[in-house]
Amino acid sequence: MSTITAPPAGASLADRYDAVRACTETLASPLSPEDQTVQSMPDVSPTKWHRAHTTWFFETFLLGPRLAGYRERCPEYGYLFNSYYEAVGSRHPRAARGVITRPGIEEVAAYRRHVDEAMAELVDRVARHPADGEPELIELGLNHEQQHQELLLMDIKHVLSCNLLRPAYRPAPALARGSAPPATWLDHPGGVVEIGHDGAGFAFDNESPRHPLLLLPFAVASRPVTCGEWLAFIDDGGYRRPELWLSDGWFTVQAERWEAPLYWTQDGDGWEVFTLAGPRPLDPDEPVCHVSQYEADAFARWAGARLPTEAEWEVALGHAVGTGRDFDAARVHPVAGDGLGVGEVWEWTGSAYLPYPGFRPAAGAVGEYNGKFMSNQHVLRGGCCATPGGHVRPTYRNFFPPAARWPFTGLRLARDPA
Amino acid sequence: MSTITAPPAGASLADRYDAVRACTETLASPLSPEDQTVQSMPDVSPTKWHRAHTTWFFETFLLGPRLAGYRERCPEYGYLFNSYYEAVGSRHPRAARGVITRPGIEEVAAYRRHVDEAMAELVDRVARHPADGEPELIELGLNHEQQHQELLLMDIKHVLSCNLLRPAYRPAPALARGSAPPATWLDHPGGVVEIGHDGAGFAFDNESPRHPLLLLPFAVASRPVTCGEWLAFIDDGGYRRPELWLSDGWFTVQAERWEAPLYWTQDGDGWEVFTLAGPRPLDPDEPVCHVSQYEADAFARWAGARLPTEAEWEVALGHAVGTGRDFDAARVHPVAGDGLGVGEVWEWTGSAYLPYPGFRPAAGAVGEYNGKFMSNQHVLRGGCCATPGGHVRPTYRNFFPPAARWPFTGLRLARDPA
Amino acid sequence: MSTITAPPAGASLADRYDAVRACTETLASPLSPEDQTVQSMPDVSPTKWHRAHTTWFFETFLLGPRLAGYRERCPEYGYLFNSYYEAVGSRHPRAARGVITRPGIEEVAAYRRHVDEAMAELVDRVARHPADGEPELIELGLNHEQQHQELLLMDIKHVLSCNLLRPAYRPAPALARGSAPPATWLDHPGGVVEIGHDGAGFAFDNESPRHPLLLLPFAVASRPVTCGEWLAFIDDGGYRRPELWLSDGWFTVQAERWEAPLYWTQDGDGWEVFTLAGPRPLDPDEPVCHVSQYEADAFARWAGARLPTEAEWEVALGHAVGTGRDFDAARVHPVAGDGLGVGEVWEWTGSAYLPYPGFRPAAGAVGEYNGKFMSNQHVLRGGCCATPGGHVRPTYRNFFPPAARWPFTGLRLARDPA
Amino acid sequence: MSTITAPPAGASLADRYDAVRACTETLASPLSPEDQTVQSMPDVSPTKWHRAHTTWFFETFLLGPRLAGYRERCPEYGYLFNSYYEAVGSRHPRAARGVITRPGIEEVAAYRRHVDEAMAELVDRVARHPADGEPELIELGLNHEQQHQELLLMDIKHVLSCNLLRPAYRPAPALARGSAPPATWLDHPGGVVEIGHDGAGFAFDNESPRHPLLLLPFAVASRPVTCGEWLAFIDDGGYRRPELWLSDGWFTVQAERWEAPLYWTQDGDGWEVFTLAGPRPLDPDEPVCHVSQYEADAFARWAGARLPTEAEWEVALGHAVGTGRDFDAARVHPVAGDGLGVGEVWEWTGSAYLPYPGFRPAAGAVGEYNGKFMSNQHVLRGGCCATPGGHVRPTYRNFFPPAARWPFTGLRLARDPA
Repeated sequence: MSTITAPPAGASLADRYDAVRACTETLASPLSPEDQTVQSMPDVSPTKWHRAHTTWFFETFLLGPRLAGYRERCPEYGYLFNSYYEAVGSRHPRAARGVITRPGIEEVAAYRRHVDEAMAELVDRVARHPADGEPELIELGLNHEQQHQELLLMDIKHVLSCNLLRPAYRPAPALARGSAPPATWLDHPGGVVEIGHDGAGFAFDNESPRHPLLLLPFAVASRPVTCGEWLAFIDDGGYRRPELWLSDGWFTVQAERWEAPLYWTQDGDGWEVFTLAGPRPLDPDEPVCHVSQYEADAFARWAGARLPTEAEWEVALGHAVGTGRDFDAARVHPVAGDGLGVGEVWEWTGSAYLPYPGFRPAAGAVGEYNGKFMSNQHVLRGGCCATPGGHVRPTYRNFFPPAARWPFTGLRLARDPA
Repeated sequence: MSTITAPPAGASLADRYDAVRACTETLASPLSPEDQTVQSMPDVSPTKWHRAHTTWFFETFLLGPRLAGYRERCPEYGYLFNSYYEAVGSRHPRAARGVITRPGIEEVAAYRRHVDEAMAELVDRVARHPADGEPELIELGLNHEQQHQELLLMDIKHVLSCNLLRPAYRPAPALARGSAPPATWLDHPGGVVEIGHDGAGFAFDNESPRHPLLLLPFAVASRPVTCGEWLAFIDDGGYRRPELWLSDGWFTVQAERWEAPLYWTQDGDGWEVFTLAGPRPLDPDEPVCHVSQYEADAFARWAGARLPTEAEWEVALGHAVGTGRDFDAARVHPVAGDGLGVGEVWEWTGSAYLPYPGFRPAAGAVGEYNGKFMSNQHVLRGGCCATPGGHVRPTYRNFFPPAARWPFTGLRLARDPA
Repeated sequence: MSTITAPPAGASLADRYDAVRACTETLASPLSPEDQTVQSMPDVSPTKWHRAHTTWFFETFLLGPRLAGYRERCPEYGYLFNSYYEAVGSRHPRAARGVITRPGIEEVAAYRRHVDEAMAELVDRVARHPADGEPELIELGLNHEQQHQELLLMDIKHVLSCNLLRPAYRPAPALARGSAPPATWLDHPGGVVEIGHDGAGFAFDNESPRHPLLLLPFAVASRPVTCGEWLAFIDDGGYRRPELWLSDGWFTVQAERWEAPLYWTQDGDGWEVFTLAGPRPLDPDEPVCHVSQYEADAFARWAGARLPTEAEWEVALGHAVGTGRDFDAARVHPVAGDGLGVGEVWEWTGSAYLPYPGFRPAAGAVGEYNGKFMSNQHVLRGGCCATPGGHVRPTYRNFFPPAARWPFTGLRLARDPA
Repeated sequence: MSTITAPPAGASLADRYDAVRACTETLASPLSPEDQTVQSMPDVSPTKWHRAHTTWFFETFLLGPRLAGYRERCPEYGYLFNSYYEAVGSRHPRAARGVITRPGIEEVAAYRRHVDEAMAELVDRVARHPADGEPELIELGLNHEQQHQELLLMDIKHVLSCNLLRPAYRPAPALARGSAPPATWLDHPGGVVEIGHDGAGFAFDNESPRHPLLLLPFAVASRPVTCGEWLAFIDDGGYRRPELWLSDGWFTVQAERWEAPLYWTQDGDGWEVFTLAGPRPLDPDEPVCHVSQYEADAFARWAGARLPTEAEWEVALGHAVGTGRDFDAARVHPVAGDGLGVGEVWEWTGSAYLPYPGFRPAAGAVGEYNGKFMSNQHVLRGGCCATPGGHVRPTYRNFFPPAARWPFTGLRLARDPA
């Protein structure tokens, strides 16, 4: 796999467009046509679908309405590669994305080139004569594609994990093994604080408006929970004690027969973890990853603590977002490290994903981007080892249903003052 | 049906015990053995199960541990009538409560008498020599039973509605028809406010601790949304326009083929509503009832408004809780009326049901009462026409999953300042 | 429970009508309103539904079209109590029969009396002036009701078995314990034989026409397989060895986690069997009962034998049908005995339930009676301990899907000549 | 696609091995890696799975036990590519064959070559020194592979049909359009006849033993039912009239919303049919194809006829099997033609798939080949346009569940004498 270099801060829109689009292709490059076609569960999408869907976004929301003379590559792609934009028309059922054999990956590559050529023209025009909202819409498309780069990685990890052969995404580099420092508590006095995006630079609509709120005093842990700590939870009967669990969580534990995080398997006396480089022995110092919000909540209760709210997280740890190690496409796995450990795993919060006071979704179909998912999901903060460089912000709100385990999800403890 | 009289404020615990227990039997009295046996969907419980389960609560948490020499009625009742207290042992599957034919309603009545006699002895002793937490535990049992009185009514309504004969719960009184006043906006300046229970008198654990928070300025409507307003939503394509709905809501609309609130059926040109007194023509002035949170949210979006948060609701409307019409067991149906209309329908809020800052569940098995349901539910406020008199408080937090329609659920609009 | 006396051979149609109708009420008499209301799985119908449905049959196919001035009891009963006669109109969903609380059992009894009074008039008229097919249609109605008497018993057994209290249908008589004689092989030379009904007396349409066919030489066992023999199958790993099973059977064993016949539970070292008189220790001499065709087939393979075809069964054992012990409503349980053991358990055959050559269903809606079920079912022969006296014939074809276990189903081995 | 030539009668085993194995690769050759990976429903298997599974058969049942020094290609292939041989070990879940991305098609091709090289050695040795059953086992492997050639074609047709793009399996040749002759009745006098394989040449175990049986007089139609005749059935409300259907069939019609054969879609006023060459207008003269047994049965009832039994079919039409047009891999679609029309579509019979009298499955794991599927399936006769040349016989028994529509299934009418 070629090296992926994030565009330097202050890069032109054209350079940024090229860099983001190239990154997707680099991430897909170790994968065969067969690998790129499969959908292993309804939540997962095939690699080639990610490559085509992100392209369809530019075609539908930018080239079609704004580039005179643009000819769409194939009229049916709107049906095949729309994800959920109800306003744009009907679409191929999400759970059946894995039955589409054609277009194959060669034609998907050609589709991407077709759109990139047209976008080069449009970006050039926009750079010279930006119309209402055009730069923002291009920027949205790029951030959208970066989100799908992370989805591509977590999805292909799930696909490969279903195979008894336990194949690797790419040849395995020597995975760094760090050492987890002891966790300490970082106290915060509470008070009236502000969270949310202040409008400088790109942000998704769900990060706005910035608004004040009142926090009571609290403390957060100085690093995420580790695999070693999770082993203690397992050994203490954590997955068998209903009193530790929310009712929905306990139901899910039993229905899904969860006994450990996703991708952990017992190997004789020890545990093995499936990674994008194939299976490897569990490293107790690593941040625990691939746990659901239900598991995170139960662990916190077991530990005599709780999950932080998203506001607590933002005011206590937001400054550390994006200052960790850079995204390394060849080493997509959380590692123990110095500092606060922000950016290795998405950290579940105790906050439901709901609109901020005064929230207004963007106008038109792109307004379906975030707001419509504001039910039955929880907020995660901080970014992870699969998040492209420069993509997250202190105010970034990721969200998943509480039973989701295939994202790179971990947790950090919080507590009220003694 | 005999008249139900709420015990006067300041009644002794013994009088209060007798009054609450008698109310349950009065509510069940119009129902045949067949009526009391059926479970029409997994969320619904049979009437006789409600009668037995509330009795089991007193037997398990009070008589067993605290009344010397108490002999339990039947050892298997613990299995049959436990609802979800995992700490107390295994239990009959919730979705299969309707397959239990025995004990029949006569034996359930005898079980109730058996427990009531023993409880009379215990209540008497507690009145004279209260030990740690005993009065509170009895009070909890009574509040628990009052909750099940409301569940009994909403459950039997669902059961009867499944029958083509559309039978009535009891002979129909002339239902009052009021007239809905025009809705106006009640403005609130926001600021730092306090919500939650202050500790005086009974409250559930989930209402505590009382705590400060910061509200931005907002307004709430002066009355709930009416059936007539809901008809306008339907006529404007409300159930067919995806842009009005949350993603999960739209999925549910399609999967369940919702086209109107539960219990509404089209009758030629007009609409008919199924009530506990049988079918009757829709009254456009009544508060709309039996809508899910998804529908409430979509209606609010259509109306250019939103749902209030639970904090907004409590500070703006909490004073009106429990001051409306008294619970009338013979007339369980929301009516239009003067004033703020609080207490006719449970009002969906935009708030997820989550712990208050510093929340601690009660110790022991009764601690499973509220806290473990804090996921995938939304808070409702205010009480409804099926809520027993004196049961609710300004700080009372009811909760249901967002797709629930069989409770007496309606909504009131809120908005941000213009 | 009162004694049930089958009408003597040669009884008048009126006497026969009265006797059959009274038998249903006698069978229902030990059951409470609660017992009679419940449906424990989609295949099961509530007792009061059986009582009403059989009544609806007379109302719909006889009184309505043939008794001048007859007034139907309630127009909606046609919807509630039609079972599957598509030609007669829509019907209440089969799997939801257990949600119907009204009419209750008192009204069902009144409905039966209402129809019986009118039928008395019609039967009298038919006795004097029989029109085309009227006696046959009444006879069909009586045989239909007798079938439902057996269904009533096997259904209520399933309902009661779902209750941890394991209640009895009626006070338990001392169940006879017989002694199973050693099984021997009864050889048959094969050749051209005839099977099917010859037209003398009542028979269902599916037993006709009588027709010749060619049998190869075969042998059948002299008695059904016993519980003791089944224990040997279990002990030899019968439920864990895929090579013994049909593919669909093995799938079902795993999906349903079958480890023994239905109603067998392990009780310490031994086995207990749930009967209509409550639980009792397993009697190894009894015919095994409540096994599916899949299990019967696997047992036969394990024993180095096979199931007989229905033609083999009829020519070798048909003469013994109806000559065993009489139906004893107070003792509905198979017993070991002398003779061929025919009539204790329905005996699975290897024959799919398909039309005989030249089969013609009856004209009109009653033609839906048998023919439309000729797919995915297997034929059973011989009658069982729950079959009303005089109901079966040598040519009688019962049928159930191969996974059914709640009827009184057992088996007898067959084999080819050595 | 290269031409496929069936090996001449009397070819050596080595030549026959090479020809059959080459045919599979030729059939797969128009398909991309993406095409070969997808499983569009649980009944369907990916192309590359068919290629690997047929190879695994030779490796497992021949090379492993009988070629000294053979090294299996990869130990995990036994798990991935076993289909249902329970005796050989656990296996990858059938419904999840489509999640396996690796081995990809290049490695599958290498696996085939690896096995072919070893098989060349073994076939050579067997030709010189055949041990017990070895030639028969190789012959079984080849017939097994031919079955999968047909499955490959019907499976990929289903896969491609799920795509809105409606892609073709291969460039479309001009499809011949024939003209259907009027159907006449071919009378047969009945009597004692014999069916089943006589032991000369290869046959599957389920075709034996040859045995006598007695047939009543009957008639069969001179050709299969055509699409034009099926249109008349549709136009006469065939899919909306419950009286025409078996109960299970009617349930399926409603549950699956069937309104026409699989692959028929309405195109304005007319109908379009999806073929392996892509969509084309319906040809009313073609044999109707892709109908379930339920539909075939309902059509026959509508037409005042019935389906033939498999014995009737064999004695009346067996002589015509394999005398029709040769398998043409470039034109896999039924056509109207002269003669009896045998070999264009598999013809549903009214016979359940059950063992012949005296049936004995083959010893060992290959004995799981046919016998274990003898429940809930119906027999089809005659072969179809996707059946490789020389594969079928007059006694060949194909079988599918009655709801199956994705095989090339049609029907021919039969009737009893007037």
